[in-house]
Amino acid sequence: MSTSGISVEARRIDALLLRALYGGSKSYWELMREGHAQTHHILESLQGLLKNELVTYDGNRFVLTEAGRRQAEALGLDRVADQRCETCAGRGIILRPPFDRVLEAFQEIVAMRPKATPDFDQGYVTPETTVLRLALMAQRGDLAGRDLLLLGDDDLTGIAAALSGLPRRIFVLDVDERIVGFIRDVARDRGWDNVHAEIYDVQDPLPETLRGQFDVFFTDPVETLRGIFLFLSRCTEALRGPGSAGYFGLSYLESSWKKWRDIQRGLLDMGFAITDMLGAFQDYQLENIVAQGYPVAKMAPVPVGEPDVPFYISTVYRLELTEAPKPLYTGRLELGTDLYYDDEACVTLRRP
Amino acid sequence: MSTSGISVEARRIDALLLRALYGGSKSYWELMREGHAQTHHILESLQGLLKNELVTYDGNRFVLTEAGRRQAEALGLDRVADQRCETCAGRGIILRPPFDRVLEAFQEIVAMRPKATPDFDQGYVTPETTVLRLALMAQRGDLAGRDLLLLGDDDLTGIAAALSGLPRRIFVLDVDERIVGFIRDVARDRGWDNVHAEIYDVQDPLPETLRGQFDVFFTDPVETLRGIFLFLSRCTEALRGPGSAGYFGLSYLESSWKKWRDIQRGLLDMGFAITDMLGAFQDYQLENIVAQGYPVAKMAPVPVGEPDVPFYISTVYRLELTEAPKPLYTGRLELGTDLYYDDEACVTLRRP
Repeated sequence: MSTSGISVEARRIDALLLRALYGGSKSYWELMREGHAQTHHILESLQGLLKNELVTYDGNRFVLTEAGRRQAEALGLDRVADQRCETCAGRGIILRPPFDRVLEAFQEIVAMRPKATPDFDQGYVTPETTVLRLALMAQRGDLAGRDLLLLGDDDLTGIAAALSGLPRRIFVLDVDERIVGFIRDVARDRGWDNVHAEIYDVQDPLPETLRGQFDVFFTDPVETLRGIFLFLSRCTEALRGPGSAGYFGLSYLESSWKKWRDIQRGLLDMGFAITDMLGAFQDYQLENIVAQGYPVAKMAPVPVGEPDVPFYISTVYRLELTEAPKPLYTGRLELGTDLYYDDEACVTLRRP
Repeated sequence: MSTSGISVEARRIDALLLRALYGGSKSYWELMREGHAQTHHILESLQGLLKNELVTYDGNRFVLTEAGRRQAEALGLDRVADQRCETCAGRGIILRPPFDRVLEAFQEIVAMRPKATPDFDQGYVTPETTVLRLALMAQRGDLAGRDLLLLGDDDLTGIAAALSGLPRRIFVLDVDERIVGFIRDVARDRGWDNVHAEIYDVQDPLPETLRGQFDVFFTDPVETLRGIFLFLSRCTEALRGPGSAGYFGLSYLESSWKKWRDIQRGLLDMGFAITDMLGAFQDYQLENIVAQGYPVAKMAPVPVGEPDVPFYISTVYRLELTEAPKPLYTGRLELGTDLYYDDEACVTLRRP
């Protein structure tokens, strides 16, 4: 076999791509969703498959060659269908009352929101993802009657949470005054007196009035190790204590499993057990990936068009404190551009 | 509110039970599935709800009292439906080719299998769970063409894997000679020359010929901390290296989140990142829980009948090595009954 002598992981990714392509031609962006690995490794695999002429590019989509079909059949991949549940797209969660109606109301509101800006590594999830993540929290008992902190909320999860009418208190911290202003305007219009939003730079200490005040947090942090720990430290400091829960998104597309391991060690050190980890739960709606010159587009082995599917996905972690919260960072911490960018980033624009 | 002054976790479990009961009366065993917490904590919550007369027992099932209904409504729980996907029962994975046909063939074979024995803390998952777990492995690229180790296989996952025709090699280690004999007989009948089964006590060193030989393992270990680390150490020692993957089942019903955290630290120490963690993925078919006097039945606040639903569920972890395997234990390790039993166990029988 042409794949002998290569690493265990590379063989795994090869097989995932071959299986996906056996089912029909795929765009570059569709293949990014299939590899269950870091973008760099998916790219290496794709380059190897092209070089060995198992896969070819028709100018628009990747297709299996005759040799590729034989290879897939030799591995038995022709007999393996996609096992994901189509009803829930593999998430295990669907939108039932009240969240089905929340999504409708939410979509009207988000149509008016401020545009994402690379100034703050924004790039929001689809409205459906925002509401699905709340449905997950409700399913775990983490929404109704709870005090909820959102750190960084370009997704406007705070507004969707308020539409559900379930949390006791919703507090949004965001560095972008446009987001904070928008949430305040909506809350005023709707008469939500339990919804608060404040401008906050994660490099600053957590305001004293917010420490130890929350049952649950959600954050979708930047993807650098120190940045993630900084976001999660602020959130951890805001929790009440044992039994308090946290949710955050993490993508394997921009972070190696090695980095995941380092992050997981930090989570345990902060006093959490990881209770759930749902892969490909979050779909992001990123625009102008090619036009803006994101590394993931520039690194493609062939010239590619703008994404035809939400290619950027992330895993949702649920954490639960088993002891008093122990944030890794407290006080002011200056990170500058290191907050946003490291060597593994490929769906983040380096600022000048 | 009657729940003020109690812990964050207790309020969460209370809310989950109240919500479940708002949807209709529930058996003791159905409530065990709903709490998303350790059995001890679910029991404390249930006892509190009974004592505060929010819940009552009608001799057969638990029901909300009028005060319980008002409490649920005050928390907004009357408006929150179950968000789990019904198609896949919240797993995100369903049985598509070849696994739909594997399940049919597997069910004929398991009808003839040796009965579970408490001698080895056996208690197998449903045949559907066995095949779903293989579908998950296939979905992650961990089955086709892979060398698969199964440590402890009263579930007969090795046979189901062989029926799929996908793994390159399947090696089963089990302490129960009846299981090993059964697997060998089936393999001989079917002419599977890539399926091997050997008698093995996890307290013994891993046979040298098996070290560093596998791409993937699956094990459903005992639930004591040292027992889990022993099972996982043997499995880890059997893996090739970075990129090799492991799967195991862990229940929060018998293990506190604190223990989960300790286990997770051990996983990282062995060289793994946790890549997926799918809750309530595995359903067990346990019989005669009341008749055999399992602690979970004796601890019930009211006399209960035998389980009417598979109440015992567990989470499936997927691990991936990010560096060379570092088993916590190597060589012979004598654990005796400590292998099977600790203070958190409640669905395990203490042997005399």
